[in-house]
Amino acid sequence: MTHRHFLSTADWSQAELQGLLDSAAQLRGKRDEGLAGKKAALIFYNPSLRTRTSFQVAMLEQGGDAIVLDAAGTWPLEIEDGVVMDGTAEEHVREAARVLSTYVDVICIRAFPKFQDWQVDRQDMLIRAFAEHATVPVVNMETIVHPCQELALMRTLQDRLGEVKKKKFVLTWTYHPKPLNTAVANSALLISSKFGMDVTLLCPTPEYLLDERYMTAAENFAKEYGGSLTISHDPEEAYDGADVVYAKSWGALPYFGRWEDEKPIRDAHQHFIVDEKKMALTNNGLFSHCLPMRRNIKVTDAVADSPNAVFIEEAANRLPVQKAVLKTLLGGE
Amino acid sequence: MTHRHFLSTADWSQAELQGLLDSAAQLRGKRDEGLAGKKAALIFYNPSLRTRTSFQVAMLEQGGDAIVLDAAGTWPLEIEDGVVMDGTAEEHVREAARVLSTYVDVICIRAFPKFQDWQVDRQDMLIRAFAEHATVPVVNMETIVHPCQELALMRTLQDRLGEVKKKKFVLTWTYHPKPLNTAVANSALLISSKFGMDVTLLCPTPEYLLDERYMTAAENFAKEYGGSLTISHDPEEAYDGADVVYAKSWGALPYFGRWEDEKPIRDAHQHFIVDEKKMALTNNGLFSHCLPMRRNIKVTDAVADSPNAVFIEEAANRLPVQKAVLKTLLGGE
Amino acid sequence: MTHRHFLSTADWSQAELQGLLDSAAQLRGKRDEGLAGKKAALIFYNPSLRTRTSFQVAMLEQGGDAIVLDAAGTWPLEIEDGVVMDGTAEEHVREAARVLSTYVDVICIRAFPKFQDWQVDRQDMLIRAFAEHATVPVVNMETIVHPCQELALMRTLQDRLGEVKKKKFVLTWTYHPKPLNTAVANSALLISSKFGMDVTLLCPTPEYLLDERYMTAAENFAKEYGGSLTISHDPEEAYDGADVVYAKSWGALPYFGRWEDEKPIRDAHQHFIVDEKKMALTNNGLFSHCLPMRRNIKVTDAVADSPNAVFIEEAANRLPVQKAVLKTLLGGE
Repeated sequence: MTHRHFLSTADWSQAELQGLLDSAAQLRGKRDEGLAGKKAALIFYNPSLRTRTSFQVAMLEQGGDAIVLDAAGTWPLEIEDGVVMDGTAEEHVREAARVLSTYVDVICIRAFPKFQDWQVDRQDMLIRAFAEHATVPVVNMETIVHPCQELALMRTLQDRLGEVKKKKFVLTWTYHPKPLNTAVANSALLISSKFGMDVTLLCPTPEYLLDERYMTAAENFAKEYGGSLTISHDPEEAYDGADVVYAKSWGALPYFGRWEDEKPIRDAHQHFIVDEKKMALTNNGLFSHCLPMRRNIKVTDAVADSPNAVFIEEAANRLPVQKAVLKTLLGGE
Repeated sequence: MTHRHFLSTADWSQAELQGLLDSAAQLRGKRDEGLAGKKAALIFYNPSLRTRTSFQVAMLEQGGDAIVLDAAGTWPLEIEDGVVMDGTAEEHVREAARVLSTYVDVICIRAFPKFQDWQVDRQDMLIRAFAEHATVPVVNMETIVHPCQELALMRTLQDRLGEVKKKKFVLTWTYHPKPLNTAVANSALLISSKFGMDVTLLCPTPEYLLDERYMTAAENFAKEYGGSLTISHDPEEAYDGADVVYAKSWGALPYFGRWEDEKPIRDAHQHFIVDEKKMALTNNGLFSHCLPMRRNIKVTDAVADSPNAVFIEEAANRLPVQKAVLKTLLGGE
Repeated sequence: MTHRHFLSTADWSQAELQGLLDSAAQLRGKRDEGLAGKKAALIFYNPSLRTRTSFQVAMLEQGGDAIVLDAAGTWPLEIEDGVVMDGTAEEHVREAARVLSTYVDVICIRAFPKFQDWQVDRQDMLIRAFAEHATVPVVNMETIVHPCQELALMRTLQDRLGEVKKKKFVLTWTYHPKPLNTAVANSALLISSKFGMDVTLLCPTPEYLLDERYMTAAENFAKEYGGSLTISHDPEEAYDGADVVYAKSWGALPYFGRWEDEKPIRDAHQHFIVDEKKMALTNNGLFSHCLPMRRNIKVTDAVADSPNAVFIEEAANRLPVQKAVLKTLLGGE
């Protein structure tokens, strides 16, 4: 294989991921010319400001550059083989990926689920098709997982806690007016279990468990790396002794595409908000979130503005971890 | 204070502004590496082509780079503290400003009024909230004032006239089919009075006077810097002996948000167009405008294409004055 | 004349075009600083991902930079002189072109026909107005011709075939669900005839002949450069002995603006698809297309995935030919 992709941390070993995290710590706040002359294409099928800025700066700070392509609504691609292309797609991903590969050195893609059929969305077909046909590395800027956010989270936890193994990590569902993508929740589960943390997934009902692919991976990582995976629907039990509380809202998969039916359950669990009372149960725990974050819906101002809130550090760490990923994939070492 | 913003020229002394203008003259047409490795975020809540291009080039010509963020419709931010964020805003400016500050060295913002309630719009809350929470300098790319346009105007006047003190500057309202932002009019008033010009504000009726904040500031600057402020509703009187005629259309503040009621007054004053007959009354006066400019609505072709028309020079000067602002704020001196 | 434009290959001699093609071959895959400090404005009145990326990279790979301006819907410009601008256009191209010329070193424009009146569209007024008023070179990124695509095509043919003179070039209309721009068809006709190829234009009926401007130019180029121009409505005849088959769909000009009337003719000619049976009639011919390309509508998978298919090479050659055009226009030699 002449190139490697960064589609999911599941494809990378713990040691390799730690290598990226160590590289991020070294690259943080520094400028070099390691990617001089390199170009990244950043393809956004969904809007972004934070990811876009941090990826663009990650190239610039290493002497490279980025081309931002807003593909939402303008670039419907066919991804199945053998199709008679008489629909809306004007181009096949075979052509798109191969041509872009001749212009740039890495292709980064954001493509959220379409939110109609999870059995389709869970295959993550667009980015996988790009990875198959591109002749340069492909990087995931959030699809049904968000591996760069995972690295930023873990970089932050290692900065604050040092060794994270056996530390208690609580991934808590929180209320949000709309059903959201499970990507960051899937990712939080993957990275915390892969680094041997004692992971608790706190959610309102069993219907809010994540896709079995990620539940099973987390169980396996727990065994392999010496941590554990616990499911809880009781906030008091879950928060008890937590070292880290990570908040995220997501739509329950059994209700995928028929969100009105989920609404009553969602509405009944607004008390899952992260507040001072719950945080008092923790082991002086850190609080984080991937942003954007609705204040006083997902977390109270008191917690968000406390010294233990590390979401700004996590967001800031997006830049160095992405620098490390790009440097590693583009061979700039 | 570890950093300074450029939100309004009202916050900068005449001597400081002259320093920016002198710096602009030196930077004009030259390329250097004074901002090497520096990144600007350009956030547009309203579309722009001229401002966007000139800011991006202002960074590039000093060895830096710019990330353009189209925020219109995609990034509604909460700016009030303590709010339960159950509306359309997914993110609070506290997070947005702090996170962006970790990625870039300066944040530049365009955010026009919402045109519904001037008592709200006149507080200029979005850019002021960014300035409060950002840990890097914030630059105004036009909100309810347009300070970069002011500098470009004054740079042009000094190029053409030398010392501008006591020169007669006429800011004339002109017809436009739609009610427009008062930002450039407010700004023209501020900068001309701050440099001691004899300023005449020409408008159809007293209802077209600008917000008292800017009227009062202009009166005070007139006293402080040896100029004067005159209000006129009579074109012949106003143009008489003018050294500079600066045209702009704006909506009358008493009709803010109920523009249909203003329309008859507006429609009755189409003769405020800048034409050769009026310009013949001036002291061989210069004509300028901030662009875009509807020909034969705001100004006749004959005036626009005359040697005394300097709006292209003013637009061109956007680049060097913005280079000077960015260089000064980013400590590249 | 202090600057030269690249609006159509019709304005450039064969020798000059060959110079651009030779320069492209030298620049391909290399990075230099020949355009250090130069800035291009890329103005898109129609969306683009391939052209946008390849132009941006063409500047970056020569040490310059590009500013991308999405003008679709946001920048309606007046192009006629003397107009009372009381319509939708806020700005005249006189101002737009002159101001941009002070910020950047070259202005590149994509502006497709409006598809309502070919007598208007065929005048290509917007880019011609920019060329008239700009004080820097203007480059065509596709209007009613697509000269950069022409160069990429010819670069690819010379790479594969060496001398192309007297080689048989078949430009075949193919079915597409929508009536498309004739730009690439016009361009294929111009460049193939200008390099002395034996050109066959294959289309369903005489109504699909291209504008007389391009038909006449091709006839004249055929005489001047030793090639020929043949019109055919019979695929078997046209494909016979072809060295190159170039596919493109376009709307028939007599039906311009009343496309529903064209639909039955279009629908009746879906068999114009490029398939293995037709390609078997050729002289082991190459197949190409400008992309995007609907598979199994315009060309079968079997042909598209055959070794004789060169559309990826043609797309890849967009980058070096554009580098050559920009370098030549900006005097970076």
